Amino acid sequence: MYCYEYPHPAVTTDVVVFSIRNDRLELLLIKRASEPYQSHWALPGGFVDIDEDLNACALRELEEETGITGVYLEQLCTVGAPDRDPRERVISVVYFALLSEDKLEARAASDAAAVAWFSARDYPRLAFDHNMIVQKAHHRLAAKLSYSTIALQFMPRRFTLSQLQRVYELILGEELDKRNFRKRILSMDCLKEDGGLLNGGKHRPAKLYQAKQPDRVDFVR
Amino acid sequence: MYCYEYPHPAVTTDVVVFSIRNDRLELLLIKRASEPYQSHWALPGGFVDIDEDLNACALRELEEETGITGVYLEQLCTVGAPDRDPRERVISVVYFALLSEDKLEARAASDAAAVAWFSARDYPRLAFDHNMIVQKAHHRLAAKLSYSTIALQFMPRRFTLSQLQRVYELILGEELDKRNFRKRILSMDCLKEDGGLLNGGKHRPAKLYQAKQPDRVDFVR
Repeated sequence: MYCYEYPHPAVTTDVVVFSIRNDRLELLLIKRASEPYQSHWALPGGFVDIDEDLNACALRELEEETGITGVYLEQLCTVGAPDRDPRERVISVVYFALLSEDKLEARAASDAAAVAWFSARDYPRLAFDHNMIVQKAHHRLAAKLSYSTIALQFMPRRFTLSQLQRVYELILGEELDKRNFRKRILSMDCLKEDGGLLNGGKHRPAKLYQAKQPDRVDFVR
Repeated sequence: MYCYEYPHPAVTTDVVVFSIRNDRLELLLIKRASEPYQSHWALPGGFVDIDEDLNACALRELEEETGITGVYLEQLCTVGAPDRDPRERVISVVYFALLSEDKLEARAASDAAAVAWFSARDYPRLAFDHNMIVQKAHHRLAAKLSYSTIALQFMPRRFTLSQLQRVYELILGEELDKRNFRKRILSMDCLKEDGGLLNGGKHRPAKLYQAKQPDRVDFVR
């Protein structure tokens, strides 16, 4: 037993994982293996070890529950409404991660009963306050499109401007004007022409681009 | 005593309070009344009560230590390096607040030995990891200037574009081109002409502006 003079909360990390799959924005969820909310879908996450960094905990829990490794995490917010967990006071540090297509192979690892991708616009009632957290993450992602290069995290190494525009449209849930989109994205100075062309069937070939700084995950203008 | 099967961290909130004073960006600090780091300068903050919302805790601690009330808080980040506090594992949810001139009357309240404003570019070595937190807050504030109306929180009800530009310059630490600044700020559609003029001595009178949505603390383009 570990005893303290004052009551202490428990602290968890949770991760909202987004990707572009099936021509839509999708969300990675796990089915909980134990109570509370057993068999409910939830965000991957779990308790912080007492000597563990917060970021390390988020990565460990993500791997233990979904098998996913090597992603870039960004802190979204910390939630701590006193009644958000029926067991005890639990404060959760929430991260979000954006996965490109080559990292999509999630599998239910030992600590989850199942793992699956859902449309970010149509997913089940989740455990705890996780629905609110997903909404917040989606909102933050959409807001960041306007002032950062965050969407490049979803892209393969080489892509056309039309493909990038489609990613923006899927996140925002609305069509964008092609000319304005190109002007704005090129003015952010985050892309370089790759020299190659993509042959698009009946359309004329489109230029291929790459991120100028592929390791810079989130360039703010 | 409060006992748990697993070790639990303690959770605090801390607040980075900025204002524009003395023609510079300033930072509100308290002198710690007790150990650890007794008599060191630090961010106002303290432990979360077990049944208290995080935001409520930040507001309560700010009032208890500085007398400041009624500010808008925004979550900055949560820090939790395992060794950041010599007492025990302490995870801190960090907020930041921007104060306009009419809310500057801070006083050392019961829980702090002293309270004072410091230049945000020249302040003492702080307790815990608070220097790193202040740097992060300053960086976030500067980044937000480019895509949000956050700077309006520093302004009085009526102000000229030159006064607003000066606030940007003090935060960024660099001079801005007047014409580009005006073009960009007006394109954000967050200001309205107030009809009044400010007589600026030997300069010709300058138009006074107001925020279009004074209660909207942080309009992202």
